[in-house]
Amino acid sequence: MKLYDYSDAPNPRRLNIFLSEKSICIPRVHVDLLKGEQFEASFKAKSPNCDVPTLELDDGTCISQTNAICRYLETLHPEPPLYGTTPKEIGLIEMWNQICFTNGFQAVADLFRNGPDWFEERALIGPHNYAKIPELVDRGRQRIMNFYADINHHLAAQCYFAGNHFSAADITALVTVDFAQWAKVPIPKQCKSLLHWHALVSERPSVQANS
Amino acid sequence: MKLYDYSDAPNPRRLNIFLSEKSICIPRVHVDLLKGEQFEASFKAKSPNCDVPTLELDDGTCISQTNAICRYLETLHPEPPLYGTTPKEIGLIEMWNQICFTNGFQAVADLFRNGPDWFEERALIGPHNYAKIPELVDRGRQRIMNFYADINHHLAAQCYFAGNHFSAADITALVTVDFAQWAKVPIPKQCKSLLHWHALVSERPSVQANS
Repeated sequence: MKLYDYSDAPNPRRLNIFLSEKSICIPRVHVDLLKGEQFEASFKAKSPNCDVPTLELDDGTCISQTNAICRYLETLHPEPPLYGTTPKEIGLIEMWNQICFTNGFQAVADLFRNGPDWFEERALIGPHNYAKIPELVDRGRQRIMNFYADINHHLAAQCYFAGNHFSAADITALVTVDFAQWAKVPIPKQCKSLLHWHALVSERPSVQANS
Repeated sequence: MKLYDYSDAPNPRRLNIFLSEKSICIPRVHVDLLKGEQFEASFKAKSPNCDVPTLELDDGTCISQTNAICRYLETLHPEPPLYGTTPKEIGLIEMWNQICFTNGFQAVADLFRNGPDWFEERALIGPHNYAKIPELVDRGRQRIMNFYADINHHLAAQCYFAGNHFSAADITALVTVDFAQWAKVPIPKQCKSLLHWHALVSERPSVQANS
């Protein structure tokens, strides 16, 4: 097994926290996204969406998309479970994982990728170029502020995103929040439940090892 | 168990095809999206993202997000499996499900929700209003055309999205392609593998029952 990685980017960070939680070690191949190595034909043959992380199995099969790699590995290494064990946990973790990705992670990506500091024509991850749309910067910022308020409300009633255990939904949310802060949209002081959760999960050894 | 539904919309259609494949019947509550019933406080308390489908369990727990409801139900009704059984299938189905949703479904949603035929300020699903960005209409169309070409290439080598079986990834892809055609972006004639797959999956009783 081989993991194509670029540990500074947020999706690889999600996977790396997941791997640390499970104490899984996989040999890495560094794909330099800033040099555009993800678009080389040899890599595109492994990852049709030209993205990292991508996991290559020993039979040559390649799996990309963070949740897909995590779910593959969860099946082989079920402990500790990060996608739930009871039907209800399984549903709620997927629900919050998806909401955090769509409303949070993609909003930060819009803010960042459509702004002046990112490559021209690279408004979206994937094999195709799309021009930046400057309106998505402001909309991204509005969406992040709404996301903060929404998850602060959710976390007022519970320690973690889905019930009493740390899960894949917390990993997606944590990486999203840190990505937003790096993009200069900090958590507002009045979001006390969100700040409390953020401090709690940031102390985990898996997060400390991937910060 | 109760399912909050609006069967004309594409995400509810994904779930309804899934339910037909598994012969699961759940009592429905119609939420009229065109009248804005999803924003009423009583529904928002059940579905914080104000979206359908949302499943209410007998203990009052509510699960929204199509994949979350499907995964909950897959655990209770494993046959026929639509998220895979071997680790490799599980990974590849999640990978293609995610790629089809991000590169396809969200592109059609952008095209449709930012155009003249949709409500003002409703550019994104969810509890918050965002103004339309007209550039997303053209970008949505470009993305759909690229999506068609990419999945046509993928389907040249296999009957279904992930291996030899119909799966949740095929459901997401089918509903995406039909949503795009409804939004007047038909599959190009040269995408022969995609057209072949589309004809094959459209014949399934689960799809016929939800068309």
